[in-house]
Amino acid sequence: MLTPHHDGSPLHVSNAAPALGEVVRVRLRVPRSAIATDGTPIGVLAWVGTRSNPNREPRFDQARLVAADVDGWDWYEASVEVENPEHGYRWLLVGADGRQHWLSQAGLSDVETRDHDDFRLVAHAPAPAWAAGSVMYQVFPDRFAKSDASPYDARRAAGDLPEWLIPADWDDAVDPEPPGRSHQVFGGDLDGVRERLDHLASLGVDLLYLTPVFPARSNHRYDASTFGRVDDLLGGDDALVRLVEAAHARGIRVIGDLTSNHSGDAHEWFRLAQDAVRSGADAAERGFYFFRPDGSYESWLGVPSLPKFDWSSTELRRRFVEGPDSVVAKYLRAPFSLDGWRIDVANMTGRLGDVDLNAEVRRAIRRTMLEANPDTILLAESTNDAAADFQGDAWHGAMTYAPFTRPLWSWLQRPGSPAGGGIGFALGRVPSFTARQFVDAHLRFAAGFPWRVRLATMNALDTHDTPRFATNARPGTQPVAFGLAVTLPGIPVIWAGDELGLTGVDGEASRTPMPWAAIDEGDDPGLASTLGTYRALARLRREYPVLATGGIRWVAVGDEAVAFVREAADASVLVFAARDAARLEAPAGVLPQLGGSAEPDASPASTLVAFGSARLAASGEASDCLALEADGPAFAAWLMPGVAAPAR
Amino acid sequence: MLTPHHDGSPLHVSNAAPALGEVVRVRLRVPRSAIATDGTPIGVLAWVGTRSNPNREPRFDQARLVAADVDGWDWYEASVEVENPEHGYRWLLVGADGRQHWLSQAGLSDVETRDHDDFRLVAHAPAPAWAAGSVMYQVFPDRFAKSDASPYDARRAAGDLPEWLIPADWDDAVDPEPPGRSHQVFGGDLDGVRERLDHLASLGVDLLYLTPVFPARSNHRYDASTFGRVDDLLGGDDALVRLVEAAHARGIRVIGDLTSNHSGDAHEWFRLAQDAVRSGADAAERGFYFFRPDGSYESWLGVPSLPKFDWSSTELRRRFVEGPDSVVAKYLRAPFSLDGWRIDVANMTGRLGDVDLNAEVRRAIRRTMLEANPDTILLAESTNDAAADFQGDAWHGAMTYAPFTRPLWSWLQRPGSPAGGGIGFALGRVPSFTARQFVDAHLRFAAGFPWRVRLATMNALDTHDTPRFATNARPGTQPVAFGLAVTLPGIPVIWAGDELGLTGVDGEASRTPMPWAAIDEGDDPGLASTLGTYRALARLRREYPVLATGGIRWVAVGDEAVAFVREAADASVLVFAARDAARLEAPAGVLPQLGGSAEPDASPASTLVAFGSARLAASGEASDCLALEADGPAFAAWLMPGVAAPAR
Repeated sequence: MLTPHHDGSPLHVSNAAPALGEVVRVRLRVPRSAIATDGTPIGVLAWVGTRSNPNREPRFDQARLVAADVDGWDWYEASVEVENPEHGYRWLLVGADGRQHWLSQAGLSDVETRDHDDFRLVAHAPAPAWAAGSVMYQVFPDRFAKSDASPYDARRAAGDLPEWLIPADWDDAVDPEPPGRSHQVFGGDLDGVRERLDHLASLGVDLLYLTPVFPARSNHRYDASTFGRVDDLLGGDDALVRLVEAAHARGIRVIGDLTSNHSGDAHEWFRLAQDAVRSGADAAERGFYFFRPDGSYESWLGVPSLPKFDWSSTELRRRFVEGPDSVVAKYLRAPFSLDGWRIDVANMTGRLGDVDLNAEVRRAIRRTMLEANPDTILLAESTNDAAADFQGDAWHGAMTYAPFTRPLWSWLQRPGSPAGGGIGFALGRVPSFTARQFVDAHLRFAAGFPWRVRLATMNALDTHDTPRFATNARPGTQPVAFGLAVTLPGIPVIWAGDELGLTGVDGEASRTPMPWAAIDEGDDPGLASTLGTYRALARLRREYPVLATGGIRWVAVGDEAVAFVREAADASVLVFAARDAARLEAPAGVLPQLGGSAEPDASPASTLVAFGSARLAASGEASDCLALEADGPAFAAWLMPGVAAPAR
Repeated sequence: MLTPHHDGSPLHVSNAAPALGEVVRVRLRVPRSAIATDGTPIGVLAWVGTRSNPNREPRFDQARLVAADVDGWDWYEASVEVENPEHGYRWLLVGADGRQHWLSQAGLSDVETRDHDDFRLVAHAPAPAWAAGSVMYQVFPDRFAKSDASPYDARRAAGDLPEWLIPADWDDAVDPEPPGRSHQVFGGDLDGVRERLDHLASLGVDLLYLTPVFPARSNHRYDASTFGRVDDLLGGDDALVRLVEAAHARGIRVIGDLTSNHSGDAHEWFRLAQDAVRSGADAAERGFYFFRPDGSYESWLGVPSLPKFDWSSTELRRRFVEGPDSVVAKYLRAPFSLDGWRIDVANMTGRLGDVDLNAEVRRAIRRTMLEANPDTILLAESTNDAAADFQGDAWHGAMTYAPFTRPLWSWLQRPGSPAGGGIGFALGRVPSFTARQFVDAHLRFAAGFPWRVRLATMNALDTHDTPRFATNARPGTQPVAFGLAVTLPGIPVIWAGDELGLTGVDGEASRTPMPWAAIDEGDDPGLASTLGTYRALARLRREYPVLATGGIRWVAVGDEAVAFVREAADASVLVFAARDAARLEAPAGVLPQLGGSAEPDASPASTLVAFGSARLAASGEASDCLALEADGPAFAAWLMPGVAAPAR
């Protein structure tokens, strides 16, 4: 892994949020013993610089050597003018032997690389500074906690529950089959969430993501019947206001969940639209959806209860996403004061047949947010290759399973594990990856994102839509999995209950009501251990900002283990993750932080966390080799000095 | 190379020009002894099918086995509904061992692949059927041929040449330095081209590409002063009409060249615009360009004589590209009847800062062409990674150097060759590639195109903008280079003079006046030999349509040589290209056309062309291995039976 290195972190990019036209200084580090793609030494360099592509016409800018042989590494700096809002660049290193080495986000290549793998400077408004540093906790309101003043209990007692609803008690089993599947209601509410904020705080969580809270005709509420108010069963508008206020008081931000692809068929807009279609009357709402001549309509994957929005309607845009009176704006302002939105089915939004209004809709949402409350985050669901929509013009980060979740499962699940629904594995089966494949898949999809989008993308082991990771995980690998979530670039996500070791075979079964009795009793050692793991790892993430915004270099990758280092000027953290007994070796020079020596006693590395048995050791007669060893599943992180970067 | 195979050719895709909503049947061929990316056998398959991404939401369709063990290959077929105009799909093969093998345009992968490498079905109007089968000849009018009734000679004699013009005689040397560089005029004209159509016909050419013919203030005419008429120095409108009529009579189509990024500063529109800016008057033309408050303006790469168009002007669109009265339409209709356009600097068109109107402009051009004359081709210059703009919505094919020209040069130029200007090599130096790198680079950039765009993309050894290939080519490799141009997917291009072995160190020096005296005398054996090579290879291309529209599978790739097969139901052609002595081996099963035997005497392969010493031979005791050998630079093609595809 002694290769030239660049990423979007402050060590390498002078300004990650430049204005259009601004000149950004970018830096490349080249180890003197760097290895080319064919395994031979790169050798002496005759030219180093960047290749930009403004207005899609290439431009080469030579870099200058700003520091030679800093612990064996040369530092180069080039100036890149940000000529387009999404300005791609790559590095070119030309050897004295005439060989060309291209460095893009996809890694080193001995032939030219393609535009979509370029590093990116983005001149659109960035995510809030707090985004990348967040630890997210995901709550499905019906299943998290029921308050003492539960509206559900009151209405159940009064026989006043909606007709569609199948009431359940908190300890009932989740019914995975229709109609219970979406109609079984356990009665969690927003005051319940508020009353349990201590639990989130104890985990180090500072960002709460609530799945939808609008009235609907299902337990998941992705079939909103209005966006005008919070569901009374959840406590209504006031309960949301109380929750956000209480969360903010604890330093926890709260984001909501909007369905921009569809509403429910009970939505007030859809009712008016359908009435108009049936009566032949005129109504603006008629244009909000795609009606066919026979009165049928387009819906999400053909599910009739989820009619799809037609974003060519300007009135829909005005009510939903454009301007201060829109739904998007309303809940970001006082008294609600949400800190952002997660957008459901963002990938399909505005897309149908030969129409694609996705970019217009997402940019409108972000524009409205900037006007209503600029200190807000915008995350969007796009569970596969999200790159095309996530170049920084609107979505700050992705809720996707391609770069992290599926590769992680493929590496850490028991061979032959079923995948259940929702996580997007072909044929519902988890393929079995080596660590090399885990890294290949991770980097392939991460390479499509600008650096700052990567930092705000969700590192989820699982979500309300997927099986739970723990269900078929190899024994002892949950710390490895969540350890990677907190140490790889991206926002680590705890799906409520993961911290208790809950299992669930699919997106339905994973929506288990939280077992508060067991938590409160505190006498389950397994539960305490898993909770302890989550607390330690979330704390690690919170205490070392380098894990949020530092650069990343891969140190060694084998079949059973990976090692990488997150780097900043003030501190570095070396991460080692093994699913089984493993030994990784790397040239000591890969970590110049250690001053050229990997001798443990002499080394300035100190252990931050260690799960399982993991060792960082020198190796070889002259200690010219760094070795990382595990006796079984292990995750460990070591603190090291920051990177001695030349002054700017 | 025993890997599962799919491409966009008729063997594998039931309709390459489907309507939106149409179901297309796609086929995959899997050798029973297929090898996975890690070198192990793929083995028994448990599931085979496609993964589509309609509206960016994945959908898996299982394929059925339609024929088992056809000469060792299994055939699968799946149905893909074309839900979006650019509908991506990839293949997934799941082994009985649980391993997943993904097949995209980038090849086989053991981890998921990204959307931009998907195979594509395109529901936009396709290129004319003749496009892929064309052999193109590129003419730079000032340098090709001077007619007996030369307007240039007449005006020169009358002392009536434009002031900017530096007159030259046909045998003068090209002056590469300003002002001669763009002002030196040799006086070629369109009647001269017409009088030399026999030369084109003798080469098997059926598509003539003329660089600009509009009046300008340079020899290259990319600085048009009007689009309203053909330059009088070239013979005016009538000469163009005469040329097109004569060409059509010989079965040769003719396309023109439009600069959609800029005009000349002497353009009538720019003059009016500048007058309006200076006087403060109102004029529609003012909005055609980007004027700054100080009266300066945006131009192509800062060259003031090439002011950049502002495509936000609807009046500019109306005059230039929209509707029946536009420039685009005028020359496609009688009496001009051009067969299409090549668009100059298409990559930068409509792009500046945070504005990107490129897609709007290119779609408008194509819409207008479909209305004016649908049987026309639209090619566009984008000399690097063209994928993003070339998904089939407008441009049929690219004039680009990334997939073919630069990789070809890197493999076949003498090590350390200078690259001269125009061809886009970093630092003006040609890197030295192995054949493996040539193929890697070729496939990396080709993988970004839908199949039909790949078929209409220009395979140029060089152009009027680049050095000539022959200048620093390894001895004996020109047949190898042009052989690849006629046998790889894409439109082979002869830049006028290449067929004579002309050289030129950059895009200026390569614009040599054609040495007709030498050609007509016919006593130069070197020239006759090169001409013979071009005639034989162009004839090969014309006689075997499989080279235009057949599929392509790579048979073997080494350091010094490559082999691939173009395939259709009625015939296949095996191609072998070596830059030096080489031996390639492949399992005999890679060519089921040979019925499992590669024994030369028993084989139904017959030699179509052979340059240098190349042999196709059986190898190994049981003839289970196919061997291709060359003693030095060589290019050869063998005709083989077509692919025995199961009936549809």
